[in-house]
Amino acid sequence: MKKTENSSAQDINVARHSMAHILAYAVSELYPGVKLGMGPAVENGFYYDFDFTPINASITPENLSKIEKRMRETLKQRLDFEKTDISIAEAKELFKDQPFKFELVEDLEKQGSDKVTIYKTGKFTDLCSGPHVATTRDLAIDGFKLQRLAGAYWKGSEHNPMLTRIYGVAFKTAAELADFLVKEKEAQNRDHRILGKRLDLFHIDEEVGLGLVLWHPKGALVWRLIEDFWYQKHLEKGYELVRSPHIGNRTLWERSGHWGFFSENMYPPLEVGQSLDELKKKKSVANSEQYLLKPMNCPFHVRIYNNSPHSYRELPLRWAETGTVYRYEKKGELSGLTRVRGFTQDDAHIICRKDQVEKELKNVVDFILYMYKAFGFGIDSVNVYLSLRDPANKEHNAGDDAGWEFTESVLRKIAIEKKLKFKEDVGEAAFYGPKLDFKIKDALGREWQCSTLQFDFNLPDRFDMTFINSNGDKERPYMLHRALFGSFERFIGLLIEHYAGNLPLWLAPVQVAVLPVGKNHQKYAKELIKSLTERGIRTLLMDENDSVGKKIREGETQKIPYLLIVGDKEAKSKTVSVRRSGKGDAGIVKFKKFLEDIELKIEKKKK
Amino acid sequence: MKKTENSSAQDINVARHSMAHILAYAVSELYPGVKLGMGPAVENGFYYDFDFTPINASITPENLSKIEKRMRETLKQRLDFEKTDISIAEAKELFKDQPFKFELVEDLEKQGSDKVTIYKTGKFTDLCSGPHVATTRDLAIDGFKLQRLAGAYWKGSEHNPMLTRIYGVAFKTAAELADFLVKEKEAQNRDHRILGKRLDLFHIDEEVGLGLVLWHPKGALVWRLIEDFWYQKHLEKGYELVRSPHIGNRTLWERSGHWGFFSENMYPPLEVGQSLDELKKKKSVANSEQYLLKPMNCPFHVRIYNNSPHSYRELPLRWAETGTVYRYEKKGELSGLTRVRGFTQDDAHIICRKDQVEKELKNVVDFILYMYKAFGFGIDSVNVYLSLRDPANKEHNAGDDAGWEFTESVLRKIAIEKKLKFKEDVGEAAFYGPKLDFKIKDALGREWQCSTLQFDFNLPDRFDMTFINSNGDKERPYMLHRALFGSFERFIGLLIEHYAGNLPLWLAPVQVAVLPVGKNHQKYAKELIKSLTERGIRTLLMDENDSVGKKIREGETQKIPYLLIVGDKEAKSKTVSVRRSGKGDAGIVKFKKFLEDIELKIEKKKK
Repeated sequence: MKKTENSSAQDINVARHSMAHILAYAVSELYPGVKLGMGPAVENGFYYDFDFTPINASITPENLSKIEKRMRETLKQRLDFEKTDISIAEAKELFKDQPFKFELVEDLEKQGSDKVTIYKTGKFTDLCSGPHVATTRDLAIDGFKLQRLAGAYWKGSEHNPMLTRIYGVAFKTAAELADFLVKEKEAQNRDHRILGKRLDLFHIDEEVGLGLVLWHPKGALVWRLIEDFWYQKHLEKGYELVRSPHIGNRTLWERSGHWGFFSENMYPPLEVGQSLDELKKKKSVANSEQYLLKPMNCPFHVRIYNNSPHSYRELPLRWAETGTVYRYEKKGELSGLTRVRGFTQDDAHIICRKDQVEKELKNVVDFILYMYKAFGFGIDSVNVYLSLRDPANKEHNAGDDAGWEFTESVLRKIAIEKKLKFKEDVGEAAFYGPKLDFKIKDALGREWQCSTLQFDFNLPDRFDMTFINSNGDKERPYMLHRALFGSFERFIGLLIEHYAGNLPLWLAPVQVAVLPVGKNHQKYAKELIKSLTERGIRTLLMDENDSVGKKIREGETQKIPYLLIVGDKEAKSKTVSVRRSGKGDAGIVKFKKFLEDIELKIEKKKK
Repeated sequence: MKKTENSSAQDINVARHSMAHILAYAVSELYPGVKLGMGPAVENGFYYDFDFTPINASITPENLSKIEKRMRETLKQRLDFEKTDISIAEAKELFKDQPFKFELVEDLEKQGSDKVTIYKTGKFTDLCSGPHVATTRDLAIDGFKLQRLAGAYWKGSEHNPMLTRIYGVAFKTAAELADFLVKEKEAQNRDHRILGKRLDLFHIDEEVGLGLVLWHPKGALVWRLIEDFWYQKHLEKGYELVRSPHIGNRTLWERSGHWGFFSENMYPPLEVGQSLDELKKKKSVANSEQYLLKPMNCPFHVRIYNNSPHSYRELPLRWAETGTVYRYEKKGELSGLTRVRGFTQDDAHIICRKDQVEKELKNVVDFILYMYKAFGFGIDSVNVYLSLRDPANKEHNAGDDAGWEFTESVLRKIAIEKKLKFKEDVGEAAFYGPKLDFKIKDALGREWQCSTLQFDFNLPDRFDMTFINSNGDKERPYMLHRALFGSFERFIGLLIEHYAGNLPLWLAPVQVAVLPVGKNHQKYAKELIKSLTERGIRTLLMDENDSVGKKIREGETQKIPYLLIVGDKEAKSKTVSVRRSGKGDAGIVKFKKFLEDIELKIEKKKK
């Protein structure tokens, strides 16, 4: 039984999926005998996985244009996408030389199917449940581009063979594709991994370990500037610092529940209490202890709280720590500063009475929005997600009904009062409590998960946290986790991309470079450097024996906000010729005036 | 064969050792059947180890006075210490009911002895090679005191039984004992472990792990104040910060040599790259990796250096990090903040050319002395140790002769020029280079190891560190490790003891407490708090409904530098009645004047 489907080409995802078939068709013809994996639509395009090893072939990015060409030839043929249902037996016969497809047929058989769906396009047939466009006429011949190759395990499991994945992007028109490629290029220009290297901010070193960041002097400076600001604001808002170690006894993590619920994300334990010799002999010793790298700071803060009794008069306590935590992410999921294995949360825990919850929440929301503004993010585009429990699945949650009802309703109330653009996600709460998550948009409109504000019913119970209330009785406090940046690593990555490396003046590692035109102007240049440095402004003297043009280009590459060019005229008149990075010439001004202006700008944290 | 020894009572250590016998004699009589371990002289006194388990007895601190009494009775008897040499067989017979002594006899036999020495005092006989005092007349009957009990493994090994150790102190005269006890009491009053708890600065939590410090808000504040000061001074002196993770791949530590030379002090590896399931099944996976907690920061800084090429023009580089490192110290060696398992070095590495070495060294020495003064330590009493290589053992050192000769002579030259009180220790250098170690004295005259300044020939070679010299050739830089405090934990412990908890004004967690006399004075008190807080002064309002006397006592217990008592008179005249912690009443002054004075004092970091 054959039929032609009248699918709408309006649905771009259907078109992208169909493009994946066209890709597989082209590759099958160019590389006869290639084994086919899966090929779905994805954001902006599609991919298809291939196994070239049985035909002893391999593929490089250079081969992609040849494949693209063949795809265009196929599209010109105006072929139908013909859908057919066939029996399992027929499918097994059809795919007997395609082991991955064969395995999928077997999977369907195990699930109880007696028929499977195939799609035929020209001479190419694929196991696929569709839907697809009706014919290749519905696909834009100039609206797609193959972009890159990647390795991908069959069915995503590292126990399976590694296949070669070819990625493409596809749009309804050539104009849309061109638009996308321009934006993508812009995103690449802002890529914090590339800028991090070019601006000498950090690197990730295979010899040290994947996902572990080494911060170079300029990057560590940016970090410290942000941390100082963060700390100052926390002091002003009534927070105190605490400090905790990076490892803790496994028994602590068992009690906190992390070892039970979170161990997949934790590094494995290290075992102490045995000598190295015993360890080398893999001998187990009775009184050995296991330690775990901390994936969170919370249990330590709880232990500090529990170290002494607390009165209702002491609450709320607001304890913050820039604590570096370690989580074992899969290698394939690591990416620059945004997905790492070691990262520093700008963590705080607020421990308070029930009557203090609402005010504390309001203050945290205000603090979050204040921080976004301080770092130059528009707060109108902040999207907030209120994660609530699944009422049908109460029994897996820590805490009691009254606690959940109170905290969920107070979170909702604050979100409304603070006019947050929020969406409720039922069933998305953590087992330990409801939460608000904040996502901000960068200059390209991309969303970044940032702040979080979470109630915790779990740790107060497990560690029996109490305070003495005004009646002299023991009472359980409310506990809030919150992070403003999320992590320093991620937030700095975001800042780099948002500003395309042109960090705001107050955060720029070098704020002002002075470029003497010739040898005669070095003395004046050094005077300027001295004046600037005395005022705490970070400077660079570019006195190499290069042309002014070359120095300007170097200064712009380094994204130094202000370049001051000084020659005869400037030295004589005590002026500077100002050039703004990325903005060009900004005229000649008296140095004294420049100094006043820049001090004011830094003070006000202006660009 | 018997003989009486004419040992000199001048030798206090001999007397202390003899006191250990008198202790064992008394315990043997009071607890018949007790098994005896060893009993040597130690600093200020002696101890003896006993096993009470075979006689089902145990001992508490309350029992010590009874034992002391019996010891005094023994001393009154004026008994000789009689030395005898006996055969191994005789000794075995003599100690057949004393299993530990019996074991020692066997040890001596294995070492080839055919005779052993015993000492007899009254009815008590001990296996002992002496020497001892001639008679109990040489021991001061009022010059000793039993102080405390401790558990101690037989022969110091945790695989052996735990014995009960009784500690005593002993001096030549009762006056010397009294003097010692006063000083000891003073040291106890300054004990950072006790003050750390009383002032709510930190605690070490068994559930988290021994040797791992949890810093409470007040302690973390002191830490941050010190760190801010430290960072500011480093910036001024041309240092830059770097940041590195707390773990690194084992291959890194193999390359650096730490895993080879330092692994006894390192926590064992943790193994990643296998799923938790595999780990639980103890299944080993081919592509797993081992990570190690960092015991030092150096290899990370070297990897940052090696991430890009360097020109001679860029040097010197001065890279600092307050890096928390982890070293596995034995449980019995842990003590408060001074011997921990996790500690934060105020580390820096200076990477420079040979022609820059001398100037860099001078600057580091100046920086060290500056820091001591800034924190109130007398620099005249600083003792410096210049550790040089053992010329007979050159082959185990990294680096070449010329390098060692240059660096040793330049260290000596600087020590002389800077008029350091230094001592040369031949053979005490690390295998990787010569060094200067600095010890400072606290208010009680006790020495604390603090700063260190070390050359390193090892890492530059192992990691092939180079720079391009002015001829365009690759050249090996010189590398210096240095720490000023040593570690933050230790240094804060030292500060607490040096100041007996009365931290200098600029470091005090609370600088000023305001104590309203009655309810009517709370408004004025709050005005004062507001004025102080606006100027960044850390305050506490003590408005509990308690008497002024009680509040003063509480303020003094918390060691708050200034207590301002305000009643009718003060409120009316805009004055404050000032009380200095530990110094009493300091009179009434206008609040405005007080404010000016204290701001100036904080600014100048004065007490």
